[in-house]
Parts: sequence; C-alpha cells; structure tokens
Amino acid sequence: MTQTEEKFLEYLKRKNHFEQMLGLVIWDARTGAPAGGVTQRAEIMETLSSELYEMTTSGDLKDLIDELKKEQEQSEILSRAIEEAEKAYNQNTKIPVDDYLAFVKLQTNAEVKWEEAKEKNDFEIFKPYLQEIVAFKKRFVQYLGYEQHPYNTLLDQYEPGVFTDTLDTVFATIKEHLIPLIQKVIHASDQPDTSFLFKSFPKEKQEELSKSFLNTMGYNFNKGRLDESVHPFAIGINPSDVRVTTKYNEQDFRVALLGTIHEGGHALYEQNISEELIPYGLASGTSMGIHESQSLFWEKFIGQSYPFWEAMYADLTTFAPAQFKHVSLQDFYFGLNEAKPSMIRIEADELTYCLHIILRYELEKGLFEGSIEVEDLPKLWNEKMEEYLGIVPSNDGEGVLQDVHWSSGDFGYFPSYALGFIYAAQINEVLKQEFPNFEELVRTKQLEPIRVWLTERIHQYGAVKKPKDLIESITGGGIDPTPLIQYLTEKYTKLYRL
Amino acid sequence: MTQTEEKFLEYLKRKNHFEQMLGLVIWDARTGAPAGGVTQRAEIMETLSSELYEMTTSGDLKDLIDELKKEQEQSEILSRAIEEAEKAYNQNTKIPVDDYLAFVKLQTNAEVKWEEAKEKNDFEIFKPYLQEIVAFKKRFVQYLGYEQHPYNTLLDQYEPGVFTDTLDTVFATIKEHLIPLIQKVIHASDQPDTSFLFKSFPKEKQEELSKSFLNTMGYNFNKGRLDESVHPFAIGINPSDVRVTTKYNEQDFRVALLGTIHEGGHALYEQNISEELIPYGLASGTSMGIHESQSLFWEKFIGQSYPFWEAMYADLTTFAPAQFKHVSLQDFYFGLNEAKPSMIRIEADELTYCLHIILRYELEKGLFEGSIEVEDLPKLWNEKMEEYLGIVPSNDGEGVLQDVHWSSGDFGYFPSYALGFIYAAQINEVLKQEFPNFEELVRTKQLEPIRVWLTERIHQYGAVKKPKDLIESITGGGIDPTPLIQYLTEKYTKLYRL
Repeated sequence: MTQTEEKFLEYLKRKNHFEQMLGLVIWDARTGAPAGGVTQRAEIMETLSSELYEMTTSGDLKDLIDELKKEQEQSEILSRAIEEAEKAYNQNTKIPVDDYLAFVKLQTNAEVKWEEAKEKNDFEIFKPYLQEIVAFKKRFVQYLGYEQHPYNTLLDQYEPGVFTDTLDTVFATIKEHLIPLIQKVIHASDQPDTSFLFKSFPKEKQEELSKSFLNTMGYNFNKGRLDESVHPFAIGINPSDVRVTTKYNEQDFRVALLGTIHEGGHALYEQNISEELIPYGLASGTSMGIHESQSLFWEKFIGQSYPFWEAMYADLTTFAPAQFKHVSLQDFYFGLNEAKPSMIRIEADELTYCLHIILRYELEKGLFEGSIEVEDLPKLWNEKMEEYLGIVPSNDGEGVLQDVHWSSGDFGYFPSYALGFIYAAQINEVLKQEFPNFEELVRTKQLEPIRVWLTERIHQYGAVKKPKDLIESITGGGIDPTPLIQYLTEKYTKLYRL
Repeated sequence: MTQTEEKFLEYLKRKNHFEQMLGLVIWDARTGAPAGGVTQRAEIMETLSSELYEMTTSGDLKDLIDELKKEQEQSEILSRAIEEAEKAYNQNTKIPVDDYLAFVKLQTNAEVKWEEAKEKNDFEIFKPYLQEIVAFKKRFVQYLGYEQHPYNTLLDQYEPGVFTDTLDTVFATIKEHLIPLIQKVIHASDQPDTSFLFKSFPKEKQEELSKSFLNTMGYNFNKGRLDESVHPFAIGINPSDVRVTTKYNEQDFRVALLGTIHEGGHALYEQNISEELIPYGLASGTSMGIHESQSLFWEKFIGQSYPFWEAMYADLTTFAPAQFKHVSLQDFYFGLNEAKPSMIRIEADELTYCLHIILRYELEKGLFEGSIEVEDLPKLWNEKMEEYLGIVPSNDGEGVLQDVHWSSGDFGYFPSYALGFIYAAQINEVLKQEFPNFEELVRTKQLEPIRVWLTERIHQYGAVKKPKDLIESITGGGIDPTPLIQYLTEKYTKLYRL
C-alpha cells in the first residue's frame, strides 16, 4: 500500500466513524430519546454534520484524490472509493457555503410552514417557501452542471446513472398498461371483504409476530434489534449493527406486519454487505432504488404472495385466533391484496402506487425544465390524479401537500420508489428462472436460499457496483418495466377474476 | 466577550459534543446494542477518545489557556472552565504518549487476566499484571508530581481537595465506632426474618414499581428514560437527557428497588444542573464523592428510612400482594435493613459498607507509599477482613480479587464511595435542621421540597463549586464522619434493640 493510499484510508475511516455516530444519534432520536433533549441533540447533529462537511471538502482531501488518480493499478474497490470521495468533494465545493447555509435555514422554516399548510389545507401558506426552495435548487443545479436535462443532476443524488429519457419511456409504458388495469379492478364485480383486517390485534402479539417474521426472513438479531417508532425505518450503522423499527396499530395489524417485512428487506441488504468494504466507506446500499428493490421484494413478492401465506397463515392465526376464525386463506389473501385508488401515496396498494410516483415525477421534471410554475402545482396535481386514478383530492392536504419531501428540497427522490418496484420485479423474474421451485421454497418457509442468492448477487457488493451495472449483472439488460407490468396484470386479473 | 474567550468557548463546545456522543455510545452499548457490533463499537469509541485526547492536549489550547489567564475580570464559571482545561492539559501532556499507550494496552490484558484469576480463585494469575499496573501508576504519579503523599495525586482524579491526612483521621474515627457496633449487631438476640425478600416478584411489576419510585423522587421522564442493563447505572448525556438503567432480579426485588432509587439519586443531580453551564463543559457532577452522596442520600436516608416506608409500603404491596400478606411494616423495615458482615463489597449493607472501603484504602495507600507489595495483598486483605468484620474469605475470588477496579489501575477511586456516604449523612443532618418537619414530608410523600433544596444547594452548580467548597457551603465545615456514625448508631441500636 502506498503512503497516499494509507492516508486516504485514514480519511475514509474517520469519515465512516462520524457517519456511524450520526446514524446512532438518528436511531436514538427516533426510538425513545427524551423529548426534552431535542435542542442538545440538534446541536450534536450539527457538530457531526459540519465536521463531515469539513472533512469532505478539505484541500488535503483534494490533494489526496489528485495524487491517487495518478497512481496505477488500483483495485475496483479503491477506485470506487476515490470516485465517491471526488463526487462528494465536487458537489460540496461547487455550491458556495453561504448559499448552502441559507438553504439549510430555509429548509427548517419551510418544513414548519409545510406542516401548518397541510394542517390548514392551504397551499398558499407553503407556496412562497416552495418557490424559494425551487429557486435555490435550480441555482444548485446550475452550480453543479447537468447533462441533457437539469433534473438529471437531481436524479443523480439518489439513482446515479438513471436519466429522464429512460424514466420518460419506462413511466409511459407503465401508465399505458396500469391505468386501464386499475379501471378494470375498480369495476370488477368480485370485491374482497376486508373487515377482518381491522379487528383489535394486541400490540404485544404484533411484536412477537414481527420478531418471528424477521427471523423467518433470515434477519440476524445478533447484528440488530427491533424497536418501535412513529415512522418505521431500518438503519445500517454498520453491517454488524443494522436496526429495524416498526409501528403497531392495534386496529390494523398490516401496518406492523408489512412494515416489518419491508424494513426487514432493507435490513437484510445492510446486514449482508461484505465487512471488507467498511474501511472504504462503501458498506452501504448503492442507491435509493436498489435499496427499495430489496424492501419491496420482501414486502410484495414474498410477504403479499399466495405461497407465503400458504406457509404462514396458520402461524398468524395462532397470534389472534378470534380475528381469523371464519376467514379462509383465500379470503385472507384477497383482503390483504385489496387494490383501489386512494389519495395518499404512503397508504396506496401495489397496483396504484407507481402512478402516485409518476405524477410527482412529471411535476418535478416540469418545475426544473421551467414548463411548470410552483403556483400551478395544486391544479396540475388534481388533474393528474383524475387522469391516472380517477379520483380528485377534496383539499390540498390530501393532495399536493401530502408529502414532506419538497419542504426540504428533496426533488429527484420520488422516482426511486417506483424504480425500486421495477427492479424488484426484474429480480423476482430472474430468481424464478434460477429457482424453478421458487414457489415451493416459499410455501415451505425455506427462504434462506433466496436470501443467500440476493446476498451473492446484490447485498455483498454494498456501494461498489453501481445500480445500472448491478441490474445488468443480474438481468443481462437495463431497466425494464415489463416484469412489473406482467406481475401486476397476472396477479390482479386472477385475484379479481377479470 | 474577547476573541480569546470566544475561541475557548468554541473549543469547550466541540469537546462537550464529543463527550456527549461518547456518552450515548456507552449508554447504547449497555442497553441492548447488538452483540455482533462490538468490534465496530470499540473502534468508534477509540476514534472519539483519540479526538478528545488530541483536543485536550493541543498546543493551540495551551496558547488559549495562557492568554486567558492574562486577561482580567473573569466570571467564576469561566475561570473554573479554564482551570479544568489546564488541569486536563497538564495531566494528559505530562505522561509521555508511549507510556500512556502501553498502559492502555496493559489495562485490556490485565482485565482479561483478572477475570480468569477471579474465576479460578487464583491471585497468582493476576499478580504479574497487577505488579505492572502498579509500577505504571507509580511512574505516572512521578510524572504528575505530588504533594505530601503520592496517593494524593490519585485521589485528586476523583475527589479533588481531599488528601490522605484527612482520610486517615476520618477513617480511624469510623473504625473506632463501627467495628464494635457491628459486633453488637451480630450478637443481638433480635434478628430480622428476611424470607419475604426472596419470593418471586414479576419483572413487569418491578418495572412499573421502578418507574413509580422515580416519579415519586421527582425524576423527570421528559428529560430521561428507564432501561434495563446488566449493571445499573445513570448517565447524564446532558442535563436534558439523563438516563437511568436498572436490573430486575425476580427472586430479590430489592435489586431493582434500591438500585433504581440509587441511580435515580445520581440522575436527579445531573438533571438539575443549570443548563447555563453546558457551554462551559461544567454541566456534570463535581466529584465522584459528591455524586455518590446524592445517590446514597436517596437510597439510604430516604429509601431505607422508616418514614418513607410508612408512605410507600401500601403502594408496594399492591404490586405483589401475596409476597407481603403477612409482613407488617415494622418487619418489612427490619428485614430491608438487615445488617451483617459479608465478603462482597457491592452486596454489603450500609452498616458494614465503609469498612470494605477503608480496607481497600489502606492497601492502596500502602502500595503507593511502598510499605506494601502486590504479593502481600491477599494475606493483608484477609487479615483486615477478620479485624474489621470478623470474617475471612475462603478464597481470593471472594477476597482480594472481587473488584474490577485495580485491573484498570483505578487506584484512588474507592475512597469516594465512603466519602459519598459521609457527605450524604452531613447533608441529611443539615436538611433535618432546615426542615424540622423532614420526617413528616417523607411520611406524606412530599419529596419535592427536599429535591428542590438539593438542587439549590448542590445540583445547580454542576462542576463549578469544588467538593470541599460545596460541603463547606452546606455544613459550614469540612468532611466530618460524626453525622454518619450517629445515624448508623441510632438506627441500628433501635432496630436491633441493642
């Protein structure tokens, strides 16, 4: 190892340790840290963030990177680490510090105003802040530069290598197939009885259930723990310490059940990243979309599948026997997979979910290319809801104001949710080809071969392989919505007897 | 504020934030962090510790301190902060880094060997390591310098301002009075029935009980939380975030009950330190002994007192009605306060506890003045146990090897435990003078005026007032064992009808 490499690894180690600490502070804040400690906690996070900012933007680091780039024969891992360091350096130094600080301040104020606006169902309260946020973000895109479309620079933060032209094609295909399918489902004569979903299911039983599902999935409790939080999440502090939280709703056990499986999918990814990547700061998911593919694969393609419930339904009923007494497996499966258009994205079912995302993508892209103004958003939102899902929000609270993302300027994030679902379907298709007995494995609770396959093809690489290369290495091709459309069409045609 | 002051406050803030993070990592590690994450966690702690070491020993800090000392008109708080920074700087820089690192390595090995030795009841296994530890510590004392007695330098780490001459006098008085009192208690014809203590008390009930006791004491759950850990502890991350842990033994409810009250006493101290001291890094207890005075005041002078159980016994019995069915309040009180010599310090009752400490103090002092060699410790230990408590350990595991402290070189620490009890008794005496209705307050669960008094006289000052000044401001005098001796004599004469 050269001296420069050693210095660079020192830098990466320190940075990684600070990130791990920040992870712990965030986990702690969301899982029962004293409410009264919030101010001090914010200060701690500010110190950690500003130390990280200093590290990633220092002239010494720049010199290191430049020297390393001159050296020969680097491993794939080291050169990815250099590439990531350079990307962060460029992004953090191209934006003037004063602009950046002003933006951070605006974010805080904007989030407060967004909350108020949402509560009062009044977009006008939020509008001037959102206008400022968009103006800042447009300026940042100018500082950072862009290829072909300004929105590509925003996409690059979450899903490197995916551009608007791809998304335009992919999303058009999805709309073409799903909009009519949803209409058929709405008008199907066969609709599920869902009343059994909403009976009282004691929290302690749900907690046992959540732990048992995590165990079945192959989540390693020696390298993790399960807690409760307002919004469920998974956090990989490092691959040996990957924590999951869930939320218990005693009137709707699906919240914990599917939430735990979803976060468990994220956690399996983080737990199975090769520990050799820790020193290179690459022991994390490679992109938002790939991460979401792992959570959605487990939630949708396993957790909401018929073979899975063939295996688990008897177990479930032991946790709350009265609730499922007169519900057949077939009726349970139909009820659990009920699909119908609704206003709120985070409550949407798998059939309608992508259209919520596509709507947001089209609005965001329009904002950044200048074809849409902030003030037009509520009207356009409602028009698209009607066009895609056949329903219109009765107010801005359940419409354009429903998501927190824009208040912190997180444009370019939403597409990852849909990409995750598309990737998951592509991965699911390959898995079924490579395991002709896939359904049999699920039906008999033998999920370990599936987890191992995911680890070998995806998890272990952490952030070394980029999302595009990873998908190509698995499928032999690029982003393709066909498997998702096929999966949804087949599943819902059968379920609703269309 | 001068520019130098501003820089100094910047330094203190950063240092405090790093200490808070270290506190959180420690709390997390002890309250359910994944076992598999231990290696990464150790690395994080090493990074934090070494950053703290660098900060506290930097030449820039030294320059700042020197400049600040030249400036006029400093507040008491600022000058205490400067004093503390200088003390830490001197201590950390006087010991050569190589020596320090070699010692840290030795500590780790010595602790492993101590564990092995304790398990096998074989002092010989630990002896060579302890000899090395003592040799290192003696050299450190030489580096740091000392006044009058080398052990004073060690005492200064935990109880600044308290020296061997004071301890010699104080401990001699305690021995003179307590050794004969203990013998009387042993031979008293009236002995308590303690069988009711060891009946099964469900963990969930103990948890409720612990929370209810913390509430009664005035612990603020908005600025804290209660968790479970192997060894109970309290940790003040900052005054708005002071966490307590306890341990549940279903066959002995006293462990959680008294443990929670004890840690609650520490926590009340930390929660009620003035937040104004945070920027100066002085929002912590002023010494080990003063801290222990707060935990012991609540545990012994409140939690083991008759008036307290007059108030609480009815409550307690509702948590486990069967257990206390035929136990009168008087019998409960007697059983809870049973006193009899035992081998293990941490299991000792309040009557015999100080003698365990005095024994250790005498051995430690002898080691550092050169009158005792490491190899003589087992023999001397057993002789002193016989002299002070009338019992002799049957092996080194329950004798000289019982405490972890020496394996990490924590000499000078033990006296703080006894000092804490002495201080607590002195504080208790003043409290009873200032509140003639003290017992009535306790009997009627009105503990808030007592908590407020402790905050006004002690808590709020954090580390601003030094232990000696603090005790003088409360009692008008110095360390005095008389109140403790009086308290124990009166209590146990009455309890055992001597």
